Amino acid sequence: MALAVTAKDKPVDTKASIDRLTTLLDSDLKRVNTLIVERMHSPVELIPQLAGHIVAAGGKRLRPMLTLATSRLCGYHGDRHIALAAAVEFIHTATLLHDDVVDASDLRRGLATANAVWGNKPSVLVGDFLFSRAFELMVEDGSLKVLEILSRASAVIAEGEVLQLVTSNDITTSEDAYLEVVNAKTAQLFAAAARIGGVLGERSDAEEKALDSFGRNLGIAFQIIDDMLDYSALESELGKTVGDDFRDGKITLPVVLALKAADERERQFWHRTLVDLDQTPDDLAHAVELMHRHGALAATLERARFYCAAARRALVTFRDGAERQALDEVIDFCLDRGY
Amino acid sequence: MALAVTAKDKPVDTKASIDRLTTLLDSDLKRVNTLIVERMHSPVELIPQLAGHIVAAGGKRLRPMLTLATSRLCGYHGDRHIALAAAVEFIHTATLLHDDVVDASDLRRGLATANAVWGNKPSVLVGDFLFSRAFELMVEDGSLKVLEILSRASAVIAEGEVLQLVTSNDITTSEDAYLEVVNAKTAQLFAAAARIGGVLGERSDAEEKALDSFGRNLGIAFQIIDDMLDYSALESELGKTVGDDFRDGKITLPVVLALKAADERERQFWHRTLVDLDQTPDDLAHAVELMHRHGALAATLERARFYCAAARRALVTFRDGAERQALDEVIDFCLDRGY
Repeated sequence: MALAVTAKDKPVDTKASIDRLTTLLDSDLKRVNTLIVERMHSPVELIPQLAGHIVAAGGKRLRPMLTLATSRLCGYHGDRHIALAAAVEFIHTATLLHDDVVDASDLRRGLATANAVWGNKPSVLVGDFLFSRAFELMVEDGSLKVLEILSRASAVIAEGEVLQLVTSNDITTSEDAYLEVVNAKTAQLFAAAARIGGVLGERSDAEEKALDSFGRNLGIAFQIIDDMLDYSALESELGKTVGDDFRDGKITLPVVLALKAADERERQFWHRTLVDLDQTPDDLAHAVELMHRHGALAATLERARFYCAAARRALVTFRDGAERQALDEVIDFCLDRGY
Repeated sequence: MALAVTAKDKPVDTKASIDRLTTLLDSDLKRVNTLIVERMHSPVELIPQLAGHIVAAGGKRLRPMLTLATSRLCGYHGDRHIALAAAVEFIHTATLLHDDVVDASDLRRGLATANAVWGNKPSVLVGDFLFSRAFELMVEDGSLKVLEILSRASAVIAEGEVLQLVTSNDITTSEDAYLEVVNAKTAQLFAAAARIGGVLGERSDAEEKALDSFGRNLGIAFQIIDDMLDYSALESELGKTVGDDFRDGKITLPVVLALKAADERERQFWHRTLVDLDQTPDDLAHAVELMHRHGALAATLERARFYCAAARRALVTFRDGAERQALDEVIDFCLDRGY
């Protein structure tokens, strides 16, 4: 399958990456990883085995890096950001484990999902374990404000995941309803992770809110691109099965936008494939074709660009320097994944 | 099926109950219930619907009552015990929701389980939501000590549930391994719920430990009796399917004790039914018969009696009065369920 949008203005060799941030945070990130391994330990061997599977698969550690980077951006020089970044990653990992149970997807980050290897049962319970460990780390840190931010985020994430279930297979889902899901299930943790840096740096409410806005808009853009890639990416590049959302009947932004422009016959196609889940092997390609026909993928990218711009504006109030530049490049990276 | 143990020394009409405790805590309990309904609210309607299903099914509210009663026992006269009792119930409810997903059992408290009605997906996510709500309630309360007790309890519960999975279908499971599971998955929350009263009453470490010991031993006895009833209760009385554990191949105390006394043929029976899960309709009755033959159910009850005695001893240090008497009767009630 071809890439969704031709990279006219973005030649491949100048693509933004998170390398600058990873390099900048290298020693902190190593400490976070060590703590993660330490704290997912349990005498019940299956727990570190299963948790290790998903934690080692690694991902980009984007969320904990937001905590580490915003802490430095806000002039924090202590050690607390390490444990709190690990807590953020544990919450994220717990969500992934429960999400995989829910979605029964076959691939995550290019590897078999934990539930495909061990079954649903341990995935749910190890998720609960990691979630509890996250709260233990926060309690040890002792900041009620951080606990408030992350317990609230956890509740909102769960609400978003349920809302996503409710809107699944409902082709009347509006763009607003889609955004509500994305804001809750993805952006809330990005916002919380970024905000913690402001708390540690003892910044003003306004600055905390700016960090929240940065994380939230970045998170929304990130999820929008993710949803776009589910239709447009090369399977090997994304490391997850292309078409997962289609097969599950999830109503993501490319679908919402393609539906807006659909004629009666196309509407019947979307109804059959996403509501009735009656799909043939050619349907995914046809779905992508319809999206191209109506410019739905380009419009999706445009929406992501809008949120990236908002994320960038939120950062402007903070001093320019290595951290802000690296975070700026993360915003570019988020968008460039879509090219 | 006949009751497991003839109630020689405990005529039915003098059976202990939790009524005394329920009456004593009536107004507090109403406030807890109101708060529970309030806090399981969400604009995502499926959440209160599903959570309401399991919360309304009600159960005995045993765990939150422990928090309420020990708070009063320790001379606490404020309001904080209401929210913390609700938090305890939310953690318990979240565990039930995830446990039902795990066990795929058909009945809980005489009603269809949430996952049988709504499917596994929402059950996992609504469990996550309630778990997060529990932490939000604790954060609002603001005691890091309570947060520590309950975040630790949550991690231990998850560990216990995973350990239970690991020992499932393993007929070499020892009585110690069984007790480790019970201590973690059930007794830890009883212990935490009781301990909170000591924290609110600002009692000494020794008294907190005594409350922990009371709750822990009561919880162990409670679970042992529960496991016994899975083989011995009348289905209508227990309100859950008798033989669930047998069908799942769970290795509970009656099985461990029956296995200890088993000859080669009996061992083959247990292997076929619990390891291979190759069961015929008559097997459950035969399992119960083997348990009777070797006195395994009576011995199970004896173990529960031992833990009840320990729970009672732990209460002795507290002033005698309405609360202690009501808690004493809860211990009796716990044991009397087995008759």
